[in-house]
Amino acid sequence: MSDLRIAVLGVGVMGADHVARITSRISGARVSVVNDYVTEKAEQLAAAIPDCRAVADPLDAIAGDDVDAVLLASPGAAHEKQLLACLEHRKPVMCEKPLTTDVSTSLEIVRREAELGRSLIQVGFMRRFDDEYMRLKMLLDGGELGRPLVMHCVHRNPNVPSYFDSSLIVKDSLVHEVDVTRFLFGEEIAAVQIIKPASNPGAPEGVIDPQIAIMKTVSGKHVDVELFVTTGVAYEVRTEVVGEHGSAMIGLDVGMIRKSSPGVWGGTITPGFRERFGRAYDTEIQRWVDAVRGGAATGKYIDGPTAWDGYAAAAVCAAGVESLETGRPVDVRLAERP
Amino acid sequence: MSDLRIAVLGVGVMGADHVARITSRISGARVSVVNDYVTEKAEQLAAAIPDCRAVADPLDAIAGDDVDAVLLASPGAAHEKQLLACLEHRKPVMCEKPLTTDVSTSLEIVRREAELGRSLIQVGFMRRFDDEYMRLKMLLDGGELGRPLVMHCVHRNPNVPSYFDSSLIVKDSLVHEVDVTRFLFGEEIAAVQIIKPASNPGAPEGVIDPQIAIMKTVSGKHVDVELFVTTGVAYEVRTEVVGEHGSAMIGLDVGMIRKSSPGVWGGTITPGFRERFGRAYDTEIQRWVDAVRGGAATGKYIDGPTAWDGYAAAAVCAAGVESLETGRPVDVRLAERP
Amino acid sequence: MSDLRIAVLGVGVMGADHVARITSRISGARVSVVNDYVTEKAEQLAAAIPDCRAVADPLDAIAGDDVDAVLLASPGAAHEKQLLACLEHRKPVMCEKPLTTDVSTSLEIVRREAELGRSLIQVGFMRRFDDEYMRLKMLLDGGELGRPLVMHCVHRNPNVPSYFDSSLIVKDSLVHEVDVTRFLFGEEIAAVQIIKPASNPGAPEGVIDPQIAIMKTVSGKHVDVELFVTTGVAYEVRTEVVGEHGSAMIGLDVGMIRKSSPGVWGGTITPGFRERFGRAYDTEIQRWVDAVRGGAATGKYIDGPTAWDGYAAAAVCAAGVESLETGRPVDVRLAERP
Amino acid sequence: MSDLRIAVLGVGVMGADHVARITSRISGARVSVVNDYVTEKAEQLAAAIPDCRAVADPLDAIAGDDVDAVLLASPGAAHEKQLLACLEHRKPVMCEKPLTTDVSTSLEIVRREAELGRSLIQVGFMRRFDDEYMRLKMLLDGGELGRPLVMHCVHRNPNVPSYFDSSLIVKDSLVHEVDVTRFLFGEEIAAVQIIKPASNPGAPEGVIDPQIAIMKTVSGKHVDVELFVTTGVAYEVRTEVVGEHGSAMIGLDVGMIRKSSPGVWGGTITPGFRERFGRAYDTEIQRWVDAVRGGAATGKYIDGPTAWDGYAAAAVCAAGVESLETGRPVDVRLAERP
Repeated sequence: MSDLRIAVLGVGVMGADHVARITSRISGARVSVVNDYVTEKAEQLAAAIPDCRAVADPLDAIAGDDVDAVLLASPGAAHEKQLLACLEHRKPVMCEKPLTTDVSTSLEIVRREAELGRSLIQVGFMRRFDDEYMRLKMLLDGGELGRPLVMHCVHRNPNVPSYFDSSLIVKDSLVHEVDVTRFLFGEEIAAVQIIKPASNPGAPEGVIDPQIAIMKTVSGKHVDVELFVTTGVAYEVRTEVVGEHGSAMIGLDVGMIRKSSPGVWGGTITPGFRERFGRAYDTEIQRWVDAVRGGAATGKYIDGPTAWDGYAAAAVCAAGVESLETGRPVDVRLAERP
Repeated sequence: MSDLRIAVLGVGVMGADHVARITSRISGARVSVVNDYVTEKAEQLAAAIPDCRAVADPLDAIAGDDVDAVLLASPGAAHEKQLLACLEHRKPVMCEKPLTTDVSTSLEIVRREAELGRSLIQVGFMRRFDDEYMRLKMLLDGGELGRPLVMHCVHRNPNVPSYFDSSLIVKDSLVHEVDVTRFLFGEEIAAVQIIKPASNPGAPEGVIDPQIAIMKTVSGKHVDVELFVTTGVAYEVRTEVVGEHGSAMIGLDVGMIRKSSPGVWGGTITPGFRERFGRAYDTEIQRWVDAVRGGAATGKYIDGPTAWDGYAAAAVCAAGVESLETGRPVDVRLAERP
Repeated sequence: MSDLRIAVLGVGVMGADHVARITSRISGARVSVVNDYVTEKAEQLAAAIPDCRAVADPLDAIAGDDVDAVLLASPGAAHEKQLLACLEHRKPVMCEKPLTTDVSTSLEIVRREAELGRSLIQVGFMRRFDDEYMRLKMLLDGGELGRPLVMHCVHRNPNVPSYFDSSLIVKDSLVHEVDVTRFLFGEEIAAVQIIKPASNPGAPEGVIDPQIAIMKTVSGKHVDVELFVTTGVAYEVRTEVVGEHGSAMIGLDVGMIRKSSPGVWGGTITPGFRERFGRAYDTEIQRWVDAVRGGAATGKYIDGPTAWDGYAAAAVCAAGVESLETGRPVDVRLAERP
Repeated sequence: MSDLRIAVLGVGVMGADHVARITSRISGARVSVVNDYVTEKAEQLAAAIPDCRAVADPLDAIAGDDVDAVLLASPGAAHEKQLLACLEHRKPVMCEKPLTTDVSTSLEIVRREAELGRSLIQVGFMRRFDDEYMRLKMLLDGGELGRPLVMHCVHRNPNVPSYFDSSLIVKDSLVHEVDVTRFLFGEEIAAVQIIKPASNPGAPEGVIDPQIAIMKTVSGKHVDVELFVTTGVAYEVRTEVVGEHGSAMIGLDVGMIRKSSPGVWGGTITPGFRERFGRAYDTEIQRWVDAVRGGAATGKYIDGPTAWDGYAAAAVCAAGVESLETGRPVDVRLAERP
């Protein structure tokens, strides 16, 4: 099957990341079109990618014959029009949050897609694909914690761009916990309240920070979220679910910590080498593939341990086996390296 | 640039993993040939992959016109002959450990490759590509711990296959710590000793387990390794490096723990969302690409949050912004889902 | 100086604990009088303690010539009368919480004591004396976290006595976080709200559990508390303070965890053996003193390592020093044990 | 029963700590005699303690009519003579390590005590009284880990006094792990080897540091110890026992970490408030007793939360109960503080 040809609209930080991702780490896809309102940025990027062109008008990109699917990383204000165009051309689209910038246009998009009878739009709530959130979801669905009752979230940024204001903390930060709540609890949110504590003296003039959001789901589950975007420390995202039979916390820099047996806290040890080193194998093979593909130019067809490393390991292990038999320290004598 | 065409020799557990990896997660490569001494296994696998054929003779695979590079996951005893064939055909090769099954043939392979004046052979010590080992390597190279002096390793398996014997614990398990030592310290190992404590009553008859390996590098650094392959608990791989100015440990299920400032222990918090959720984005986009490519068949072009999820989040955030202004709880009223 | 003679009023679980504490672990004090409304319980206890008598009327105990100070572990409803009697007799009193069972009588007690111009009443909020809370207080007072802004608390019990009702969760559990807030922030609480999520199906009929308390201090600091007293898991008390320049959490079973440098999380390593083993020395000496005092009866004047342990350690160390010189393993040969 | 009267011989850092401990934290004992070869130090100390005298000759102290028991914190070289005097006078003695400075005199002491048929000498291996070591001992004796097989120890100091040499690392540091081994495994050590890695460039001239000790018990259990006394970081003492059915580690600043169920790591949560806050209660009552005893002088009979604190807590809880009923935030109105 040939590669999926993707148009990336908007190549700022996020969009450029996606272009790099699709080009070098994603299997079965390539970027065929890029677009940005800064035309030169799109052109530069396109020039560096085989068989990729820059177009000036995002609607031309969406309509392009060489475009099978669209990735929207354009500013939120542009989403409505671009999503409608995608629907019109029946092009699948991955849309970075927000769907659109207000509720009524978001609902309109939902209705138009429903009329088509086809699922074409995916929204970029990436936490659902994070290992820890996926494990927490599995834990909840598996029932070990019983019915979930309460969730505590922390969402801290070291700092934010200068254009951030109080409402963006809700729309840009809290939105992730909104989706996490809906994802983990599988139900809608019925009410929300924002509490405004005394502000951080280090927050920009006029920005209310921290904020505390209290949410209640339709079945009465409680969720609280600390939103604090000028901590100066680090990016900290933490979620703790408290259920009938125990609690579990992710995001504390130590993997998931569960408390669900009487008197015991802890996490999970990887059961085997495939779980422990699966990612390492992916990285190893991707880097090797890249090195081999670039080998004609560099004269080096590897990016990792050499045959000499294999030989040296063999020599040490042979000495080890000898020591296993004799019980004595055994010297390792390596040949001169060719 | 067209995809790298890879022949995978040996499609047991490890080889089949590599086939799946290259086919679905690696960018810029595809499996064009598979081989196994169990012919049917190779044929079944080949049938499921576009443009892939099974061949009965590994040397034919290596020589194939449709093969740019070779991945050796065949039994160790087959490596020597297959590696020599790769060198002869100037095919880059990723060779799962061991390089060969004894020291002299390993050295012979090193010499043959050196004569070609080209780096064609990479050995599959995958730990060098593991996030934690890479961070430990960076920490050491950055000098924060000063000169390394001592390393403690633990290598525990819950159990091992029935054919495992005492010397395989050295050749198959210790070999990883041998490479880790050489990788992290950047020098050769000068001597090795195996200590045999009283054995685990639960170990198979005749197998000496646990074993303690003591290694000394050429500059006098000390490395000790607990090898214990019948713990019944889990797969635990732990490495602690002790340097002039501090120590760091990985593999304790809690990320890397450093002690290098007077009186402080701790780890690193991710600085931003790209570091924290980079992998999640990769997973998100790969799964979306796979869903879109399969969409014609399934009628569903997404594998993740829907437009409705985007709308619901917008509605909650709008209520949040209203609460931010009024200070009151605000009900969220969703339209009926189309 | 002679020992302080204490009357303990109420010898249920809490009071009996205090009697044992004063008798066997506290320096400079002894229990001279015990009282309980179950007369036999007090008499049994008194019989086991040298120079201690049981009295039937708590007011007699307070007035006693052989009583220098009073410890109130009686039911809360008895406190008002007993505290007034202590004030009248100018006897210092340690009063387990609550001070009294309602606000107006509590205020009356405060006023009466103030009229005396003497600090006689201490209230038993024991968390102020807990190592972790003391360290958190020091951290806040030291300024490392900057001005505190927000506090998150968790207060979980595996289960509660059958007489517990919804309001006791506030009066008996939340009261500790109320004091912790006032202690750590050094200011009064201005408003409080109890949120009632959907209840734990496992909670007793009619008991609202969990509850979420939201408190606001006079300067606007936000405090939230999860109160959940039927978790079935364990006793978990957790407090996280978030300040201008970082956050610190205690109660997570792993000592205090701080995040106050950019990008780093961690805790504190004990600087020396006195900090690390100070408690162990206390225990060692107390147990030795107890053994020596009981030695005439038992014929054994020690409760710990013997002279033989000292000899055996000397023999191993001597072998170690020999190995240090020779580099070889040295056998340890012990004499026959007399 | 009257207090045990103790003579403390040697009042350097360790001895002075013991004097303070016995005087202010130990129940049922007091210091009646102090001795030091620096006479003024002993005299100063004695002057500050009720009913305590300084004596110039340690043997006079041991023989004293006002001495029931002896605590030896004198230099190791003085121990032999002082221990013999204690035995002669049948005085129980707590002897800080070492028992004596060489193996033969240690054995002689053991034999003399055995001839008396009485246990009079306890040796100050304080780790046996440390909470974590006691829990590890209980875990081992309880059988959860199965038969112990291997132990890994780390013994790190930030720095050592200038008189420290290579052999003191064995005699003064390793000696603790020697006792820990004998305590936890309950058997003697059969052989010991010291490995000397390349030394820390920061170690004093001529001092071999780090050192690695390898010990083997009579039943063949393996123990390794990293001794590193010039780390510049902190005091770190870590012990990991690996058994047939799991492993447990203490000293990693996070309580005890166990791995003994397949796939799970973790520690223990305190089951209830008495376990969690037992120490806090001790501290609370001791400080209250001390304040009351000093009250006549200071006019303050408390050292902790006041009646006002009790009143304020009552007021907040009353508001909480009101909010529990109404569901609304309730303001807290405190009376003016008298």
